[in-house]
Amino acid sequence: MEIVCLDLEGVLIPEIWINFAERTGIAELRRTTRDEPDYDVLMRQRLEILDRSKLTLNDIQAVINDMGPLEGARNFVNSLRERFQVVILSDTFYEFAEPMMRQLDWPTLFCHRLEVDNDGRIANYRLRMPDHKREAVKAFHELKFHVIAAGDSYNDTSMLKEADQGILFKAPANVIEEFPQFPAVERYEELMAQIEKASPRFGK
Amino acid sequence: MEIVCLDLEGVLIPEIWINFAERTGIAELRRTTRDEPDYDVLMRQRLEILDRSKLTLNDIQAVINDMGPLEGARNFVNSLRERFQVVILSDTFYEFAEPMMRQLDWPTLFCHRLEVDNDGRIANYRLRMPDHKREAVKAFHELKFHVIAAGDSYNDTSMLKEADQGILFKAPANVIEEFPQFPAVERYEELMAQIEKASPRFGK
Repeated sequence: MEIVCLDLEGVLIPEIWINFAERTGIAELRRTTRDEPDYDVLMRQRLEILDRSKLTLNDIQAVINDMGPLEGARNFVNSLRERFQVVILSDTFYEFAEPMMRQLDWPTLFCHRLEVDNDGRIANYRLRMPDHKREAVKAFHELKFHVIAAGDSYNDTSMLKEADQGILFKAPANVIEEFPQFPAVERYEELMAQIEKASPRFGK
Repeated sequence: MEIVCLDLEGVLIPEIWINFAERTGIAELRRTTRDEPDYDVLMRQRLEILDRSKLTLNDIQAVINDMGPLEGARNFVNSLRERFQVVILSDTFYEFAEPMMRQLDWPTLFCHRLEVDNDGRIANYRLRMPDHKREAVKAFHELKFHVIAAGDSYNDTSMLKEADQGILFKAPANVIEEFPQFPAVERYEELMAQIEKASPRFGK
């Protein structure tokens, strides 16, 4: 019995912060952990910028809603859910993901949560637990599931390693090169084929 | 961050075997663990009856499809999924649940699986693990989720005890009496109110 674990940003939806920076014209929000390796410092900078720009959660959700999922993502995930149990594992926050989850017909999502004031200001953020993607795969294994996982970046590789089969989807060349043990694909049809191949039910 | 765990039969859909017995007129299929306490003996009898009646998985799925979910279940579960992560924990089999999951827009389901021959005959069944509902709640706790669980019968009570809040929904009087620690409700609006009350986000 299988569970498919999918990363969210880069796999089903665009990178939220980068697209948000482009759409709002706030260039400082383009900074990622490549520019500021300390995630907590980075997040506090981001929240300060949102504050200074007087952007409430409603404003942010409206921008995210307009981004929409990646082309073909809704069909892919709905077709996947007809044959596999699917849990999305992401390092985003429920409040940011919500407009996208609505457009993807509410698949199950494990991620983190923001602390939002009564006036909609984002006051803080709370990570549910460290390395939660990998921990989720371990938990599903304890529940006797066969786990197939797909992601696009470094922060997915501990999840991919823990899974019975990891798959890279739209990953950058350096990640593909560093992790040759994972098949690397670019299109949803290929991803579906890799998932079926890794499935004890379909793969034989 | 919360996960709501729901039992399936009796909570979102009718009891499958009882309804299947009624719709096909095969009275022997009405037997439950109350008549035959050994689940394996009971299941082997059921599979033998299906075999003898020449009922393939397709036939069975067609009957289950016609049953449909309980009135209001689809609205309830979709409204719930907009605000909570939802995982359905059931002792049925994916193959039986599938027509219902389609009608409920494919919520995530943890249950068991049948072994089906190429000609559609059900050859055997495989339980994923014993007491899997309770084990799932434990796993979600390890993943730092706050767990709210609802079910209708004895086989749900280990899950309800393990959860941060257990709720009885449409439970028989003897179960309500034996487990006074769980609030007992009959309608989806009441269940939603109990879930919100048990939620750190909504309950304050």
